[in-house]
Amino acid sequence: MRPFKETIPLDQARALIDGAIRPIDRTERVALDAAHGRVLARDAVATADVPPFSRAAMDGYAVRASDTSSASRALPTTLTCIEKVFTGQLPARTVGPGQCTEIATGAPMPPGADAVIMVEQTDADSSQVLIFAAAEPGQNIGRQGADIKTGQTVMRVGEVLNASRVGALAALGLAHVEVYARPRVAILSTGNEIVDPGQPLAPGQIYDINRFTLAAVIAGHGGVPVPHRTAADTIADLSRAVDECLGDDVLVFSGGSSVGERDLILDVLSDKGQVLFHGISVKPGKPTAFGVVGGRPFFGMPGYPSSCLSNAHILLVPALRRIARLAPHAVKTVTVPLAQRVVSTTGRHQFYTVRIVDGLAMPAFKASGDITSMSQADGYIEIPAQTDVVEKGELVEVTLF
Amino acid sequence: MRPFKETIPLDQARALIDGAIRPIDRTERVALDAAHGRVLARDAVATADVPPFSRAAMDGYAVRASDTSSASRALPTTLTCIEKVFTGQLPARTVGPGQCTEIATGAPMPPGADAVIMVEQTDADSSQVLIFAAAEPGQNIGRQGADIKTGQTVMRVGEVLNASRVGALAALGLAHVEVYARPRVAILSTGNEIVDPGQPLAPGQIYDINRFTLAAVIAGHGGVPVPHRTAADTIADLSRAVDECLGDDVLVFSGGSSVGERDLILDVLSDKGQVLFHGISVKPGKPTAFGVVGGRPFFGMPGYPSSCLSNAHILLVPALRRIARLAPHAVKTVTVPLAQRVVSTTGRHQFYTVRIVDGLAMPAFKASGDITSMSQADGYIEIPAQTDVVEKGELVEVTLF
Repeated sequence: MRPFKETIPLDQARALIDGAIRPIDRTERVALDAAHGRVLARDAVATADVPPFSRAAMDGYAVRASDTSSASRALPTTLTCIEKVFTGQLPARTVGPGQCTEIATGAPMPPGADAVIMVEQTDADSSQVLIFAAAEPGQNIGRQGADIKTGQTVMRVGEVLNASRVGALAALGLAHVEVYARPRVAILSTGNEIVDPGQPLAPGQIYDINRFTLAAVIAGHGGVPVPHRTAADTIADLSRAVDECLGDDVLVFSGGSSVGERDLILDVLSDKGQVLFHGISVKPGKPTAFGVVGGRPFFGMPGYPSSCLSNAHILLVPALRRIARLAPHAVKTVTVPLAQRVVSTTGRHQFYTVRIVDGLAMPAFKASGDITSMSQADGYIEIPAQTDVVEKGELVEVTLF
Repeated sequence: MRPFKETIPLDQARALIDGAIRPIDRTERVALDAAHGRVLARDAVATADVPPFSRAAMDGYAVRASDTSSASRALPTTLTCIEKVFTGQLPARTVGPGQCTEIATGAPMPPGADAVIMVEQTDADSSQVLIFAAAEPGQNIGRQGADIKTGQTVMRVGEVLNASRVGALAALGLAHVEVYARPRVAILSTGNEIVDPGQPLAPGQIYDINRFTLAAVIAGHGGVPVPHRTAADTIADLSRAVDECLGDDVLVFSGGSSVGERDLILDVLSDKGQVLFHGISVKPGKPTAFGVVGGRPFFGMPGYPSSCLSNAHILLVPALRRIARLAPHAVKTVTVPLAQRVVSTTGRHQFYTVRIVDGLAMPAFKASGDITSMSQADGYIEIPAQTDVVEKGELVEVTLF
């Protein structure tokens, strides 16, 4: 067996990862329906005004404002309605002095008119319309180009397409949009003991958990999870598996990064690429490796489900978001008293899972091998390496999952 | 034209919506790969122990703890190694007095042994192993069932399957899981002037924006957006369109809920169902209707893109999440000074969009018809109906999009 030579602190691990990755350059064209959450790869420049014509902003009457200057509820002005214009229609007539056009919200303004009186300030009897208020010129009109002007840069490269930005692209008439590709993240579980859920377990075997937790994390942070078949603990099979993953942008393996004699994945990776670290001073998740293979970052995650998932949150998510050109994850935290004394004598920076119960942080961490350490937790507190004990009642900041 | 008879306050609108909706009952079976974010529809009960056997939690040597009671670095105990067990293998031999078995993390414990000494506390020379520390019984063993016990309820109906919970289901060996269906939300843009992006615009026409913004919001809050073809402003076409949407769980229309003579959608809905309100005291978004048709909630959103999207956030999201059995949306807020005086004399509760620039809330709201009121904003502040002015420098709470 080969003990860890040394572990490195979390900050150093993060810096090494950060130095080895870069934002994705590949782009693709997607339908606007599928653009939500994607990152814009070209500035969006308007080729026409939005709205494309001046239009009524209210249901009412299009008027010449000067005709209404003396109108009031006590002394209404009477105008003659010459036409009705609904949305999607074009006005046929010009509004002359003493005239008005009945108009629906969104319908094009008729020539001659320079204001809209809302219907609530009018009363109509056949074609004679009583106007109860004076209009300012321009009133209740959505002017051509008021939203977006031809030639205007509406959105810049790198902006994330939330609902309203997808809407602004629709306003430009774009049915498709050029976005950065989502990084494809190869997921590979290694180990002879690993069996897919749904299959029977032979003695000594366990179900693959990490493929599923990693896929969920990757999909939730801008990546495309690409599960690969479980590899056996042989140099030949692992080598073939790594080669198969080189079509993807990022490689995440789990298992085989501890110090057992049969942890061959690191030998394979050292041979094909460069291991930048192996072993970090955190708990859970110490036996974690990182390096570069075939120009791609690879994460060698611990086989233990809680360790693997904890490091996915702590190391993989920030890296993946940067590769995917997303802003850092906005974690949510709550500060609450600790429900029970926690002893942490590991000398490692600990991510200790807790449940929030009745406003208290209740310890949820069991063992690194226990997925329920995570699945029955609401988040985690961090206990620095030099802290041995966190007392009951002490205020702790819980980072929520 | 038909003016609004009355508008109702936002709270009352919310209460009417809440009274008309209920959480979805339909369930479906999905592959575990696709279960992330879904809501569990059956308690998950373990049919086997996890781990299914007692296993080494460290690389090292499986020992009888009593053999090591006097071991120290100064006076090591020597044991005879009788076997090597890797993960996925079964031990063949029983550990007797004075014996040990070399064991990898995750490998099944051999009979006879009751503790694991980590490799760092040993030194091996052929089959003779020096043990440098005494072991406690049970040390470094992940006991059968320590994570999950047979018969244990691991997860309950209604829990949202985040990464770790998907992992816990994998640990149970489940390849599929029964979840609540995502509500299907019909999206229908009404109006003769509406054209799909990618098509040329005729005079008086504009591009459909709401279909895209609504779809993004719906997909982001647990629903399945189901866009329907744009309906023309005729009773016959609208009636047929509503019937086509009744295969979905929720109906969201935009346009045609203002007070124009041609706003026929409300007539169609009154005829086929029940309109619970029409007109709310908010800005933007006053011409909003809600009711029930064919037993399904329908939202009649304003045609104006900012109004429609604002109300999607304010009214649709809470309702949709409740129908989808998701917890209320955890909005993020920041409290910053207002960069400019804002005048709001509407007498309506206003959702006023702002951009965060240099730590200040900069007004971003233009007009209800302008999508850039939203797409160039980071969030909104709320200005109550009775507040006319918010002064420059005043601290405002910005709800981030």
